[in-house]
Amino acid sequence: MVVVFKQSATDEQITSVIGKIEHYGFRIHKSVGERKILIGAIGDSPNFDVRKIKVLDGVADAIKITEPYKLASRCLKSSNTVIDLGTVKIGSDQLVLISGPCSIENEDQIYRLAEVTAQSGAKILRGGAFKPRSSPYSFQGMGKKGLEIMRKAADKFGLKIITEIIQHDHVDLVYEYADIFQVGARNMQNFPLLKELGKTDKPVMLKRGISATVEEWLMSAEYLLAGGNEKVFLCERGIRTYERFTRHTFDLSSIPVIQEKSHLPVIADPSHASGYRHLVPPMARAAIAAGADGIMIEIHNNPEEALSDGPQAMFPENFLKLVEELKAIAEITGRSF
Amino acid sequence: MVVVFKQSATDEQITSVIGKIEHYGFRIHKSVGERKILIGAIGDSPNFDVRKIKVLDGVADAIKITEPYKLASRCLKSSNTVIDLGTVKIGSDQLVLISGPCSIENEDQIYRLAEVTAQSGAKILRGGAFKPRSSPYSFQGMGKKGLEIMRKAADKFGLKIITEIIQHDHVDLVYEYADIFQVGARNMQNFPLLKELGKTDKPVMLKRGISATVEEWLMSAEYLLAGGNEKVFLCERGIRTYERFTRHTFDLSSIPVIQEKSHLPVIADPSHASGYRHLVPPMARAAIAAGADGIMIEIHNNPEEALSDGPQAMFPENFLKLVEELKAIAEITGRSF
Amino acid sequence: MVVVFKQSATDEQITSVIGKIEHYGFRIHKSVGERKILIGAIGDSPNFDVRKIKVLDGVADAIKITEPYKLASRCLKSSNTVIDLGTVKIGSDQLVLISGPCSIENEDQIYRLAEVTAQSGAKILRGGAFKPRSSPYSFQGMGKKGLEIMRKAADKFGLKIITEIIQHDHVDLVYEYADIFQVGARNMQNFPLLKELGKTDKPVMLKRGISATVEEWLMSAEYLLAGGNEKVFLCERGIRTYERFTRHTFDLSSIPVIQEKSHLPVIADPSHASGYRHLVPPMARAAIAAGADGIMIEIHNNPEEALSDGPQAMFPENFLKLVEELKAIAEITGRSF
Amino acid sequence: MVVVFKQSATDEQITSVIGKIEHYGFRIHKSVGERKILIGAIGDSPNFDVRKIKVLDGVADAIKITEPYKLASRCLKSSNTVIDLGTVKIGSDQLVLISGPCSIENEDQIYRLAEVTAQSGAKILRGGAFKPRSSPYSFQGMGKKGLEIMRKAADKFGLKIITEIIQHDHVDLVYEYADIFQVGARNMQNFPLLKELGKTDKPVMLKRGISATVEEWLMSAEYLLAGGNEKVFLCERGIRTYERFTRHTFDLSSIPVIQEKSHLPVIADPSHASGYRHLVPPMARAAIAAGADGIMIEIHNNPEEALSDGPQAMFPENFLKLVEELKAIAEITGRSF
Repeated sequence: MVVVFKQSATDEQITSVIGKIEHYGFRIHKSVGERKILIGAIGDSPNFDVRKIKVLDGVADAIKITEPYKLASRCLKSSNTVIDLGTVKIGSDQLVLISGPCSIENEDQIYRLAEVTAQSGAKILRGGAFKPRSSPYSFQGMGKKGLEIMRKAADKFGLKIITEIIQHDHVDLVYEYADIFQVGARNMQNFPLLKELGKTDKPVMLKRGISATVEEWLMSAEYLLAGGNEKVFLCERGIRTYERFTRHTFDLSSIPVIQEKSHLPVIADPSHASGYRHLVPPMARAAIAAGADGIMIEIHNNPEEALSDGPQAMFPENFLKLVEELKAIAEITGRSF
Repeated sequence: MVVVFKQSATDEQITSVIGKIEHYGFRIHKSVGERKILIGAIGDSPNFDVRKIKVLDGVADAIKITEPYKLASRCLKSSNTVIDLGTVKIGSDQLVLISGPCSIENEDQIYRLAEVTAQSGAKILRGGAFKPRSSPYSFQGMGKKGLEIMRKAADKFGLKIITEIIQHDHVDLVYEYADIFQVGARNMQNFPLLKELGKTDKPVMLKRGISATVEEWLMSAEYLLAGGNEKVFLCERGIRTYERFTRHTFDLSSIPVIQEKSHLPVIADPSHASGYRHLVPPMARAAIAAGADGIMIEIHNNPEEALSDGPQAMFPENFLKLVEELKAIAEITGRSF
Repeated sequence: MVVVFKQSATDEQITSVIGKIEHYGFRIHKSVGERKILIGAIGDSPNFDVRKIKVLDGVADAIKITEPYKLASRCLKSSNTVIDLGTVKIGSDQLVLISGPCSIENEDQIYRLAEVTAQSGAKILRGGAFKPRSSPYSFQGMGKKGLEIMRKAADKFGLKIITEIIQHDHVDLVYEYADIFQVGARNMQNFPLLKELGKTDKPVMLKRGISATVEEWLMSAEYLLAGGNEKVFLCERGIRTYERFTRHTFDLSSIPVIQEKSHLPVIADPSHASGYRHLVPPMARAAIAAGADGIMIEIHNNPEEALSDGPQAMFPENFLKLVEELKAIAEITGRSF
Repeated sequence: MVVVFKQSATDEQITSVIGKIEHYGFRIHKSVGERKILIGAIGDSPNFDVRKIKVLDGVADAIKITEPYKLASRCLKSSNTVIDLGTVKIGSDQLVLISGPCSIENEDQIYRLAEVTAQSGAKILRGGAFKPRSSPYSFQGMGKKGLEIMRKAADKFGLKIITEIIQHDHVDLVYEYADIFQVGARNMQNFPLLKELGKTDKPVMLKRGISATVEEWLMSAEYLLAGGNEKVFLCERGIRTYERFTRHTFDLSSIPVIQEKSHLPVIADPSHASGYRHLVPPMARAAIAAGADGIMIEIHNNPEEALSDGPQAMFPENFLKLVEELKAIAEITGRSF
C-alpha cells in the first residue's frame, strides 16, 4: 500500500495515520518531496481494505499495490497450467475445442450433436442440464435425466463432457456424469459453490461474470485454487456495456491480459458473447487469432426449435466449415487443434 | 412482438416468416406501409426469445412489446404492496429505517449497535452472519453463532432482524433467527436461492445486482412472487460504471422507475453505493427526496476495527443527526419515519 | 508516481528502470520490503504518462499519485469559488435556479417561458439557439435570431441568460447576447472551444461528458481556468450506462465528490439525466438534497409541439409547484433559493 | 413506430393518442389482441422522438422501428462502398494498412517512420499535428509545421497521409497537406466539424466515440454523407467500460455488425484500444480475423521519448513481423494486404 498525504496535512495528522498503519501491521517507509509526503506501507496483507486509510484526516489517497490473488498469479507460478484430460491438454499448444447445444433436450438431439462434435475433431461435448434462466417461466433444464443421456451420447463418440453446475449441493450428482464442471457467468461469485468445487479433483471452467473485472475473475479462480483444486481454466464470454446490437461486448483483450497476469488457461465463448449465430464465425476467428487457449461454440441440429438460445447456435455444416478456418488461424499463431 | 421486414424482403420470405410466427403460437396483424411491412404478433408469451425471429431471412427487426414480468407488474396489481411487520409497514407512508453493522462481529458490538438503532427510531437491525467476500482470505462471517447473538440483541431492544442469506440450504437456519431475508447483489440471479425463498412466509429484500437492469431485477422478484411469497421489497445499492471515485454509481432514478413499473416497495442503501461514510449523508438525503420507501444505513461503533466495510460505516452520533434530516425531508414528500 | 517491481525483477532491470525514472526528471525514494521493491518517484509532472514505466521490464505497476488538475483542485484553493452575477451568487448559500426551454423556437414561446422563469424566482433563463443534434435531419436551432429574441425576453423580466455554444468561433457572437456560456456534454472535450472560452470574462457552465469520469471533467475545467477564466461552474447531467429505462444514469454522488475535490460550484440537470418529465421532480429534489449548488430544469408551454426534448420538459404549473418543494429541501440543508 | 397501450387504457385515452399520432403525420394500423392494443404508426419520420408518445396517458410503450440513418444504411445502398486512393482501395478485398506515430515530433522521426511504413507495404502514413489532449499542460502538437514535414516524408516514400482534424475552420489548412481527414473519438459528435467535412472531396475516417453506440456512430457518418461526401470509412478504437487493465475495451464485434448494417468500410485501431504495445499484436490479429477492412497501428522509433502515447507504439522491427502474420490471417479470410 502507498499512502499519499494532502499538502495541508498537519504533523499531528501524519503521526496519527502512521500509527494506524503500523497498528494494521505494516512497516513504514516515508518519502518526503517538496510538496507531497508519501508512505510506502510494506507488509503481507493483499486483502487489506485501503479505504480504511483513505478516510483518515490528512490523507489524499491510499493505493493498493499488491495483487489480491496469489495462487492464480503468474508471480507465484510462472509456467502455464496444463490440464490433462487424456484426449486433450488444456493450456498446451494444442487448442481445445468444445461444442454442443445450450441445453440437453432429448436423446436424439444430444446424439446428433455429439456426432457432429466428434466429426469436427472436438474432444469435449457441452450441454446444460440445469439452466439458470432470468425468467421463472422459461425452460429450466432436464436435470439428472439430461446428464444421463448426455453421458451415453458422449461415451458413444469418445467425448469428454462439460456441463454447468448451479448449486453447491449438486457437486456429487454432476461429478458422477461430467468430466468438467462449468461455473456460469451468474455464478462467478457464488462463493458456496466455488468452495465446494475447490474440493473436487475434476477440472472447473470458470466463466467471467457479466460485469466482472479481470481482477475479480481471478479472485474467484483463487477460491477454487485455495480449496485445493488446481485444474482451473477460464472462459471469456462477453461483458455488459451500453451497446445493444450484440448481446454482450466480447472483451477479447482479456485473453492476452489473463495470459500475462495468470498461469491459468483461458478460452472464449463467442456464442454467448455475440448472441447471434452469424456473428459467431468472425468472433471465433478473432478469439483464436488473439491467442485463446481454445473455444466453445454452441451448435444445434434444429435451432428454431431449441429450448434455449437457439438464435446463437450454429448449424452443424457451418460449424464444421468454421473449424477448418480456426485450424488455419491456429497454425499462424504456432498452435493447432 | 412486432416484426419489421427489410424493404428488400421477398414475398416468399414474408410468407415463410409469418408461417413461423404462427407456428410459435402468435396471431398475426399485418400492416403495410409505403416502404415497410410490419407484423404485430399477438399472443401470451412474455418470455419468447425474439432473436428467433430476428435471425430469419427478410427480417429487419423483431421487438418485444410485453414486459417479461407479470406478478411484479403494476399492470397486474395497481395498488402498492405493503408488508406489515407489526412495528413498521414497508411500502406505506411510513418510511422504513434499517441500520446496523455490515458484519456481526461479537456480542458487545451488536448490542451497542442495536441500541443505537433503537435510539434512532429504526425498527429493523441489519447485520451479516454469512458474508459473500470477493477474496477467500477475507473474513467470511460468524455464521450461526452470529445469528444467535444478533437475535438476542434485537429482542432486547424490540427490533426486527434483516440478514443476508447466501445459499439455498440455509433457509431453515436463517428463518429461525431472522425476520427478513436479504438477498445480496451477487445473488440477485442465484435462482436456486430465489426458488427456495419463494416458498417461505417471511419477507425478502432483494438487492439490485451489480450490473442488473431494472427489468432483470424485477424478473428476479418474479421468481420470489411466482413461488408464492408476496412479501417482497427491493433495495437499490448502486450499479457498476466506469466511474471510480465512488464504489458504485448510485442509480437513484431507479426508485421512481420501479414505483412506476411495479407495486413492490423499494428502499435504498447509500452505504454500499458510495463506499465512503462521508458520502452517505448526502446520498441518504437524496434517496429520501427521490421518494424511496425507506433506507438502510451501515453504522459501527469502531469502524476502524470493523471486519468488513468499516470505511462506509457511519459513527453512531453522525447517524443519529442524519436521521433527523431524513425525517424533515420525508415530511416534505408527505411521508414520515 | 509510485513504481512497484515484480518479485522476479533482476538488479539490472531495477537499475535500468531507476535510471529512466531519473531521466524523466523524478527524484527517487526506494523502499525494500521482504518481497517487493517500491520506488517513490517525486517530482512535479502531473501529466506524466505512467504507462511509460509500466511497460518496462521488471516493473509490476506504476501508479500516478498526483491529481492531474491543479487550478481546479481544492488543494490549491480551499475556499469555494463564488460567481457573482449580481442577482445571484453561484456557489454561495443561495442556490441557483435556471429554467427555460431546450430550444428557443419563437418569440411567443420564449416570452411565456421567461415569464414563468421569473415567476418561479429563478434568475437565469436557459434556451438553445445552436443545437448539437445526433441527426443531421433534426432541428438545428434558430441561430443568431434565437439569441436576439431570447435577450429581449430575458431583459423584459430582468433575467440573465445561459445558452449553449458549440463552436469556438462563436464566442464573440454568443458573448454579445448571453451572460453565461454553456458547454454541453458532447463538447466537454472540445479543446479549441475550451481554449477560446478560457479567454473570456463571462462565466462558463461546463456539463459533464456523456461518459466522462469526474477527473476528466475537472481536467476540462482546468483548460478554462488555465486560460485565465476563473468563473467556471459544473453541471451533472447523467452518464451513459447499460440501463435503458432512463435516458442517462443521473450520477448524483458526483456532487459531493466534486465538492470534496474542487472549489468549483456544481449544479444538476435532472431533465437531461432522466429524459422524462415525470422523473424530473423526484430527481430534482434528490439533487438539492444531495447538496447541489443549484438546478437547471427544462420547461415548455406546449411540450407536445416542442422542436426538441419536449418529453422531458415540465409544464409551467408543475414546475412552479416543484420549486416550492425544492425551497423546503434547501432549507433543511441550510441553504435557500 | 409501434405504440403499445396499457391494459388499463380507456377508450378516450386511445382515441386521444391516435389523434396525436395522426397529427404528427403518421398513418395508423390498429391491432387488437386479447389484452393488448397495438398501433403501427406508418410514416417517414426516422428522427421522430418516440418519447413524445411514451409520455401520453394510456401508453405502455412506443418503439422506433426505423433506423435513424439512411445514407449510411445498407438498405439504401447494398453494395460495399470502396474508396479509391490510387495505391489502395479501402473497402475492397485489399485490406488497408496505416501506420505511423501518434504525434509528428520532428523531421527525423517522421522520415524514419515513413520509411518503416513503406517497408511494411502500408500505403498510408498516420501522424497527428493537432492533438486533442485531456490536459492543457500536455503537448498539443506541432501544428502546420508538422503537416509540412509529414507531407515531405510521405512524398519521399510514395505514401498517402491521414491526419486528425480537431476544428472546423482547419479544413482548408489540413486539406492542403493530407489525403484523408481523421475525425477522432472525442470529435465524433462535433457537428460543425462533420458539416464542414461533408463538403470536401477528400476521404474522412470517422473514429467511434468513446461511449458511442454503433447507431450513433452511423448517425455521425450520416452527417458526412448528407453533406455530400461519400468517401467515408469508420474506425473502431475501443469503448469505455468498467475494465481498467486495458485503456479501453476493444469492441471487435462492432466490425461484423457495421458490415451488416452499413455499406461503409470499417477498420480497427488496436493501439488506442489496448493502450499497451504488447497487447497490439494479438488484438491486431483478432481484428483482421474478425473481418476488418484494414488496420491502423502506431509505431515509434524511440517510444520512450515519444511526446504522446509512446507506451502503445510498437517498435519498427516488431511491427514488420506483425504485418507478416496479418497477411497470413487475411488470406484465410479470402483477402490480402
